Amino acid sequence: MKLMNAKGVRDFPPEEKIIRQKVVDTLRETFEEFGFNPLETPEIERFETLSSKYAGGDEILKEIFKLKDQGGRKLGLRYDLTIPLARFIGMNPNLKMPFKRYEIGRVYRDGPIKLGRYREFWQCDVDTVGSKSMLADAEILAIADRGFKKLGLKTVIKINNRKILDGILLSTGVKENKWIDAILSIDKLEKQGKNEVKKELEQKKIASTSKIFKLIQKKENNKKTLDNLKSFISNDIGKEGIAEMEELLKLLKSFKVSVDFDPSLARGLAYYTGPVYEVFLEKSEIKSSIAAGGRYDEMVGKFVGKEDAYPATGISFGLEVITDALSSKEKKKSVVDVYVIPIKTTSESIKIAQKLRNSGIKIDMDISGRGISKNLNYANALDIPYVIFVGEKELKQKKVKLRDMKTGKEQLLSINNLVKKLKK
Amino acid sequence: MKLMNAKGVRDFPPEEKIIRQKVVDTLRETFEEFGFNPLETPEIERFETLSSKYAGGDEILKEIFKLKDQGGRKLGLRYDLTIPLARFIGMNPNLKMPFKRYEIGRVYRDGPIKLGRYREFWQCDVDTVGSKSMLADAEILAIADRGFKKLGLKTVIKINNRKILDGILLSTGVKENKWIDAILSIDKLEKQGKNEVKKELEQKKIASTSKIFKLIQKKENNKKTLDNLKSFISNDIGKEGIAEMEELLKLLKSFKVSVDFDPSLARGLAYYTGPVYEVFLEKSEIKSSIAAGGRYDEMVGKFVGKEDAYPATGISFGLEVITDALSSKEKKKSVVDVYVIPIKTTSESIKIAQKLRNSGIKIDMDISGRGISKNLNYANALDIPYVIFVGEKELKQKKVKLRDMKTGKEQLLSINNLVKKLKK
Repeated sequence: MKLMNAKGVRDFPPEEKIIRQKVVDTLRETFEEFGFNPLETPEIERFETLSSKYAGGDEILKEIFKLKDQGGRKLGLRYDLTIPLARFIGMNPNLKMPFKRYEIGRVYRDGPIKLGRYREFWQCDVDTVGSKSMLADAEILAIADRGFKKLGLKTVIKINNRKILDGILLSTGVKENKWIDAILSIDKLEKQGKNEVKKELEQKKIASTSKIFKLIQKKENNKKTLDNLKSFISNDIGKEGIAEMEELLKLLKSFKVSVDFDPSLARGLAYYTGPVYEVFLEKSEIKSSIAAGGRYDEMVGKFVGKEDAYPATGISFGLEVITDALSSKEKKKSVVDVYVIPIKTTSESIKIAQKLRNSGIKIDMDISGRGISKNLNYANALDIPYVIFVGEKELKQKKVKLRDMKTGKEQLLSINNLVKKLKK
Repeated sequence: MKLMNAKGVRDFPPEEKIIRQKVVDTLRETFEEFGFNPLETPEIERFETLSSKYAGGDEILKEIFKLKDQGGRKLGLRYDLTIPLARFIGMNPNLKMPFKRYEIGRVYRDGPIKLGRYREFWQCDVDTVGSKSMLADAEILAIADRGFKKLGLKTVIKINNRKILDGILLSTGVKENKWIDAILSIDKLEKQGKNEVKKELEQKKIASTSKIFKLIQKKENNKKTLDNLKSFISNDIGKEGIAEMEELLKLLKSFKVSVDFDPSLARGLAYYTGPVYEVFLEKSEIKSSIAAGGRYDEMVGKFVGKEDAYPATGISFGLEVITDALSSKEKKKSVVDVYVIPIKTTSESIKIAQKLRNSGIKIDMDISGRGISKNLNYANALDIPYVIFVGEKELKQKKVKLRDMKTGKEQLLSINNLVKKLKK
C-alpha cells in the first residue's frame, strides 16, 4: 500500500499547526471580546439542507461531497458555515435575538485543485442575526480591524453597500431584473480588469457601461466618493444605501476603525442586501481578500420559511490565507520552552520538570537516555530555546544548569530563579 | 423543507460549546506542558488507508462513512486519530524521534445510535512514537492525571500490561494463538460480569478459567497484587510485563501520580503490546472510562511497512463523556463579562466598550436600541454577570453605573475603577 493523502487535503505538521492555532486563538479571543458566543454545528448535513434553493447555489451544489449512511439517507459535507447557522436558527425559534455567534471549523468543496485551493479548509465566521442596525455591521468591521492588528498584519478594509450599487444601476437605466447579473460581473473588476468586465456586461445586454464605471470610481477620500454619488443618485434605494454608509462611517469613527469606501466593491454572492466588506493586506504578495462578508437580511428568513424575520450580517476569515501571510516570519517548530536533559538523574529530573510545569512552562524531557550531544541536536532541530542539564553535581547545590540555545551561554540557577527567568 | 440534523450528529449551542472548549483548551494546555506538539490531519482519508489490515479491523470497517470525489476516488471519513498518525509517520520518514504529538478533532462512525453514542464525535489524543521507554508511558499517565485535576474531576487511573495478561494465560496453559481471543473476552469483565465472561471463554475453548480469574484478581494494593503474580508467573513474557509494571510504578511515584494496578484490565483493541490504561470517574453515575490507551509497539511499524521501527504509546480522551461529567455544574450561557446599555449615548458607549475590550474584558452591547427593562431581561436570560448603564448624567461625571446582576447592587464607577473591579 502506498501511503498518501486523499487528493486535495493536507496534513499540518507541528510547525504549520502551531501558527494555525495562533490565528484561531487570536480570532476566537477577539470574537469573544465583542460578545460573540461559540456555536458548533456538524460537518455532515442532510443533502436536502445543503441543496436548498436559498443556500449556496448551483456552482457550489456541484462541489458538495455526497455520502449516504447505512440507512441510505442522502447526506453531504458542509461547504460553508452559513447554511448550518441558518438551519440552527430555524430549529431553535426561541433563541434570544440578536443572536451573536462565531464558528470556526472545516468545510469541504469537491472542486478543482489549484495553488491555494484545497478540498478541505477552515473558515472562521462571526455573524449577528436578528438586527438591522448598522451598529451590528460596525461591530463586525471592528472585529476584523482588531483581529488583524492583534496578529500584526497591516490591512485595508474596503466597504460598499449593495443598495448603492442597485442605486447606481437604477440611475443608469439598468432594469431591476438585471441588477444581480451586473453586480456579479462588477465583482470581477479587480481580477479581470475594466475591459473584460465591460465585455461581460455588454454580453449580458447591459448598455450604459461607461456611466456605470464613472459612478463606481473611487474619489480621493470617502467623503468625496459619497458626495460624488449623492450628486448623481436620486432614487430611493440608492439614497438608502448612501444613508446606511454615512451612518456606518460615523459609527466606525467611534470604534476608531478606518475603512476605504469603494463603490466598485461587489462581492460574489447573490444574497447580500446591504453593506459588503473585504479585507486586503497592505503591500503584500497576497492580492486576494483575507476576510470578507456583508449584510444578508433575507437569506436566513427565506431558508427558514419566515421572510424578513432574520436580518443578518457577518464576516468570514480565511484561515489558510491568513496563515500564509504570517508563516514566513513566525514559523515555530515546537511549543516547548525548555528541554530537560537528565544526567543519570531521572527521578529528580521528573520532579524538576513537574515543578516547572506547575508554573505553566512547557517542558519536554529526554525519555530515551541519549547522550548530551544527541540531546542538544534534538533540541536544536526543534528550535527549543532553552535546555537544562540536571546532573548530580548540580543537584547537590540544589541547582540546574541552564543553556540558552541561541547564544550558547550557560548559567547555574536554583529552580526558583529559573522560573523567574523563564517567566520574564 | 423540514429543518433537521442528519441522523446521529448534533449542534452544540453556546451553553454546550463553551464547556466543550474549556475541556479542549485545558487538555491542549496540559499536552503542551508535557512538550507535545499539535498535528492536524485531514478528516477525509483514502479508503485504502482506513481499511488497511493493520488499521481498526472488521468491526470498524463496517462503520466507515464512504464517499467518492468527482474523480471517482474511493474515500472515507476517519474513525480515529491513530491511523492518520501512522500514515503521517510513514509519509515523513525524517521526523525527529521520539515524535510527541497531540491531535484534537472529529471522527466518524456510521454505527447504531444509542444514548451517548453518536456518529460524529471528538477525540483528544496524545501519543509518543519512537520510544520503548516506560518514561513515555509515565508521561502519558501524568498528563491524564494533571488534565483531570485541572478540570476539577476526581479520577481513578487503572493500569495493567498486556505482557502480564499474556504471562497469566501462558502460565494457566492457554495456547498462544488463543491469547488475544481470551484477552478480548476478559475485557468485558466489568460490563458483563464473571459468569458471562466465563461462558464466553469456555465457548472459545479456553479451559482453565477459574485459575485465570484467580490470577487477574486485584489484591489490597499494587504491591500485593504484584507479589501475588510474581509467585505464580515464571515465564519470560509475564516476568517482562511485571518488570515493566514495577518500573512504571516507580516512575509514577516521581511524577506523584497514583494509579491502581488491575491485572484484569484488558482494553478492547488487539494492537496493544505493553502497558494499558483506563481512567474512570470516582463516585460518579458515569461508569464508562473517560480516557483510555496503552502501548502499541507494532501497529505503526506494520502499517508503515517497517516492522519494529515505531514503538508507540498514547491515550485518547473522550470529549463527550468528559463534558457530560462537567456540564451539570459548570454550564454557562455566554462568555460575556459585561453587557453595555447605552442610554442615548451610542458613540460614547462604543468608546467605553472598546476601552474595556483593550483590558481583555468580554463586552456585549445593546445594538437594537431597546429599553432598559428589555435589555436587563436579555442580560438575565444569557446569565451575563454585570451590566453597565451609560447615560449622559453619568458621562458628565466621567463615570458609568455598574449593576451586579446577581445581587442587583448598583455602583457609580470611573472606567479605570471599573476595569480594576472586573479584573479582580
